[in-house]
Amino acid sequence: MRNNPYPLLLTPGPLTTAPETRAAMQRDFGSRDEAFIALTRRVRERLTTLARGADSHVSVPLQGSGTYAVEATLGTLLDRSRKTLVLVNGAYGKRIERLCRLIGAPTTIYETAEDVPPDPAELGQRLRADPSVADVILVHCETTSGILNPLESIASVVAAEGRGLIVDAMSSFGAIPIDLRRTPIDALIASSNKCLEAVPGLGFAVIRRARLEASAGKCHSLSLDLHAQWQGFETNGQWRFTPPTHVLAALDAALDGLDREGGVAGRFARYRENCQILIRGLGSLGARALLPETLQAPIIVTFRMPSDTAFQFEKFYAALGQRGYLIYPGKLTGVDSFRVGCIGHVHAADMAGFVDAARDVMRTLRIKSLAP
Amino acid sequence: MRNNPYPLLLTPGPLTTAPETRAAMQRDFGSRDEAFIALTRRVRERLTTLARGADSHVSVPLQGSGTYAVEATLGTLLDRSRKTLVLVNGAYGKRIERLCRLIGAPTTIYETAEDVPPDPAELGQRLRADPSVADVILVHCETTSGILNPLESIASVVAAEGRGLIVDAMSSFGAIPIDLRRTPIDALIASSNKCLEAVPGLGFAVIRRARLEASAGKCHSLSLDLHAQWQGFETNGQWRFTPPTHVLAALDAALDGLDREGGVAGRFARYRENCQILIRGLGSLGARALLPETLQAPIIVTFRMPSDTAFQFEKFYAALGQRGYLIYPGKLTGVDSFRVGCIGHVHAADMAGFVDAARDVMRTLRIKSLAP
Repeated sequence: MRNNPYPLLLTPGPLTTAPETRAAMQRDFGSRDEAFIALTRRVRERLTTLARGADSHVSVPLQGSGTYAVEATLGTLLDRSRKTLVLVNGAYGKRIERLCRLIGAPTTIYETAEDVPPDPAELGQRLRADPSVADVILVHCETTSGILNPLESIASVVAAEGRGLIVDAMSSFGAIPIDLRRTPIDALIASSNKCLEAVPGLGFAVIRRARLEASAGKCHSLSLDLHAQWQGFETNGQWRFTPPTHVLAALDAALDGLDREGGVAGRFARYRENCQILIRGLGSLGARALLPETLQAPIIVTFRMPSDTAFQFEKFYAALGQRGYLIYPGKLTGVDSFRVGCIGHVHAADMAGFVDAARDVMRTLRIKSLAP
Repeated sequence: MRNNPYPLLLTPGPLTTAPETRAAMQRDFGSRDEAFIALTRRVRERLTTLARGADSHVSVPLQGSGTYAVEATLGTLLDRSRKTLVLVNGAYGKRIERLCRLIGAPTTIYETAEDVPPDPAELGQRLRADPSVADVILVHCETTSGILNPLESIASVVAAEGRGLIVDAMSSFGAIPIDLRRTPIDALIASSNKCLEAVPGLGFAVIRRARLEASAGKCHSLSLDLHAQWQGFETNGQWRFTPPTHVLAALDAALDGLDREGGVAGRFARYRENCQILIRGLGSLGARALLPETLQAPIIVTFRMPSDTAFQFEKFYAALGQRGYLIYPGKLTGVDSFRVGCIGHVHAADMAGFVDAARDVMRTLRIKSLAP
């Protein structure tokens, strides 16, 4: 049992946050006051800098969830007179395809199985065969399975073919290095409540300035228009519409935490250790991860469904919850499976405690093995 | 000087919140866990009940600001093959007109001056003259000037003519009584961070169930589709996309505070007292409110710009800020003016303290009078 009134969240987000992050929400900011304008400016600069995009990109935070930021980026940037190619190997890629169609962008997909990354060479051939494709969209870490897609090699191919690249980095930004100086990306989309370890309520895109400048008046939505949102920030430093002031303050504090940890490299190292303890620990109880280690991002791990007839997911979930650990109740993969996250304000001792709790739950529920 | 590290917010929102409301943000919820599903259910029920709509309406909370909720409601409900009539007497009415045009709803307006409410009889004539108008949209309290528009009489006329009524109750819901059993309204839109006194990050609409049921597939946006959002809640109690968990917890705690205060009647009484102290107090220093008392909602007061040449708004604002009071820096009215809010976790002693601070600032800045 954890010595904490609330359970530890082992999910893809919202996550367990640091006390300092939550403490930052004790202040009520006036949304048009200089103190909040300064906070907005600082967070925007930190996000751009974190992606190494200060010379070329601007960051545009947006009220709402990560999906809002994805819809906003597509609505603001996509050329409806040309084609968009979406790389799909999970639920989030599929949602992007759906969004493209909703906003009237002609769309084609290159789909691979959930445990198969897109092949950059194959993508290159498809792009050469279809000059009408203006943009490629990639989900960096597909939370469906936990797969890490090959961002750098995809970006090289897309740039070599002279097309634009938009990356949904929702589940990777802040924990997996992305360097906009080396990796050509027009827009990078993420949210406050994933690897940045703040609370939910804000998405953002880090967008190539030249492309954003050329995107006035294209968006299908007033609220989601990132060009107008950016113009608001540039004009008077303010948000067009009421910002989630407490969430932004929490994000600023969470970025302090990222700095203290040694930035993206430090966070990646902690998550990798969490992930290893998780896979080895549940592995010692028989569990098998869906993905080989080479494709597994240290974000969320999908385990194949145990074959032991004593294993019922709902009971397993509830019994872990009673012991202070919430795993992810949602299943998105085609294969029967369950998922456990290894991100958030979660450390090696927490993951070891979780493995102990899983062992204890197995005893209580008379599950002999987690083997599929 | 206030005995508090942070200034008191005398704005139309985000507002100063109660300590209990901010304390509720100390817990990290798993967004798909039963505890959060129960929290969502409870808040949805409380919002519907607060509007006395439990028998006829459902509440649909939405990630984002109040404007998101307005855009979502219009996008979800409006019939693009018929006309929408927008009652305009301020910036928020104008924004609604713009939103209607953006989503492709044929729109007509009935505009009055900022200090003139729409005339229900005139509206009735216009509706009879134009049977193609399907819906009327009213801003209950126009924050531009602080005017309270005549909701009940407008609603009667609209119902008598057999049209639908959508009400932007952003700045009134929770403080000014609205009873859906007596007042025919198809959709009532508001947000977490106004008179409900929670933190910003959530909007919501309380929508007539029959109308929402008939509104599938109309919305121009995936994120803002309130029919789909509602279906998500009805299906498994969950949010379609990551919810602002801490903001929702704060809203639940803020609704506890509203109950403790005696509900809408108790809150209205406190705000009215705040408003009276403000108008009389600044009045004793020469200031004159834009609106007559009969049109003034106890939400935000617009004062005519003082004529004393020693009065410079930026200096006045900054000096009040140094004394712990943030008034609203934005001006929206056509006439030269400044605005002071009287809502939030703000009490009579706070308003009296503000008047003292204004008197002190006048001495320091050598302003003789606030008379226009």
